[in-house]
Amino acid sequence: MKMLEEKILLEGKILPGDVLKVDSFLNHQIDVSFSQEMAKEFKRVFADVKPDKILTIEASGIAIASFTAKEFGNIPLVFGKKTSASNMDDFYSAECKSYTRGTTYNIRVAKEYLQPNEKILIIDDFLATGEAFVALINICAQAKCEVLGCGACITKAYQEGEERLTKLGVRVHSLARIKNMENGKIEFCED
Amino acid sequence: MKMLEEKILLEGKILPGDVLKVDSFLNHQIDVSFSQEMAKEFKRVFADVKPDKILTIEASGIAIASFTAKEFGNIPLVFGKKTSASNMDDFYSAECKSYTRGTTYNIRVAKEYLQPNEKILIIDDFLATGEAFVALINICAQAKCEVLGCGACITKAYQEGEERLTKLGVRVHSLARIKNMENGKIEFCED
Repeated sequence: MKMLEEKILLEGKILPGDVLKVDSFLNHQIDVSFSQEMAKEFKRVFADVKPDKILTIEASGIAIASFTAKEFGNIPLVFGKKTSASNMDDFYSAECKSYTRGTTYNIRVAKEYLQPNEKILIIDDFLATGEAFVALINICAQAKCEVLGCGACITKAYQEGEERLTKLGVRVHSLARIKNMENGKIEFCED
Repeated sequence: MKMLEEKILLEGKILPGDVLKVDSFLNHQIDVSFSQEMAKEFKRVFADVKPDKILTIEASGIAIASFTAKEFGNIPLVFGKKTSASNMDDFYSAECKSYTRGTTYNIRVAKEYLQPNEKILIIDDFLATGEAFVALINICAQAKCEVLGCGACITKAYQEGEERLTKLGVRVHSLARIKNMENGKIEFCED
């Protein structure tokens, strides 16, 4: 998605530790208009599938996933929780490592919101090591749901995440794929 | 908002500890169509103000706040973070107690996303003790922003939050105000 690549070049900042900071529009401040453009692009790319639900993970995936759910005809959105709420007792759970935070946590989804045979489209802001996507796919497998695809706004294509998902037999689409960002310069994959 | 009261009666569950569980449509699974109706209602109620930005807090406020930002002409949404990201170094911070989790945490907003004199509308899913709203108002004060109002989807009107905000001189509107929910029965305030 050319618009996204341009926005990353304009607003993204490369920080030490191979971190791409895009919190001016994607994961702290949200560019609401732009999010809707990205959601429309997900709908265009996955036009051939009919998900029953969108699945994402808190927190920064929620805005883009909300608009994507709207584009797919206002289907329900479910977001995996990273912290244990006192009022959730019957849930699916999968372990997940955070690349930027250096921590491990469990993603939880209440069983009642993923029913057997439901068709799921997973949407998130970033795909790097693939930890969050793999955990959500794992949760869908526990729930006997079918994962129709994974959509990421930004993928670090030089990391293992994309390949991990492909090896699991899951269709993946990224709106922007970064080839490398060494020496302070962001280079995108040519598709 | 009659529609919301009806939905709470239909789908809400009262749990021990005075917890109202509405995670079928508001804070785990999101009813995307209904969220847009609530966002339109916030726009109708706050039609006389012109916010520069919507401010909320992760995670369950993000969906409703995203749609509200859309209703206000696609203004930016900023969400306060509950965990310390390794890549956020210059931020405003305020302490907040979680009623349902029994923990205390800091809400953080990067300084660059709240500029002096910006007009802010704060939107969140729940207003009970008012901790999160007060923390966000505190952060806006640090940033020298003007808070135009606070909008909550559901307010426990029998708790102190609403009065705390009013005492701070802030305009508050709730889409549904619960008068009490003792004995397993939810009763709404008559406005």
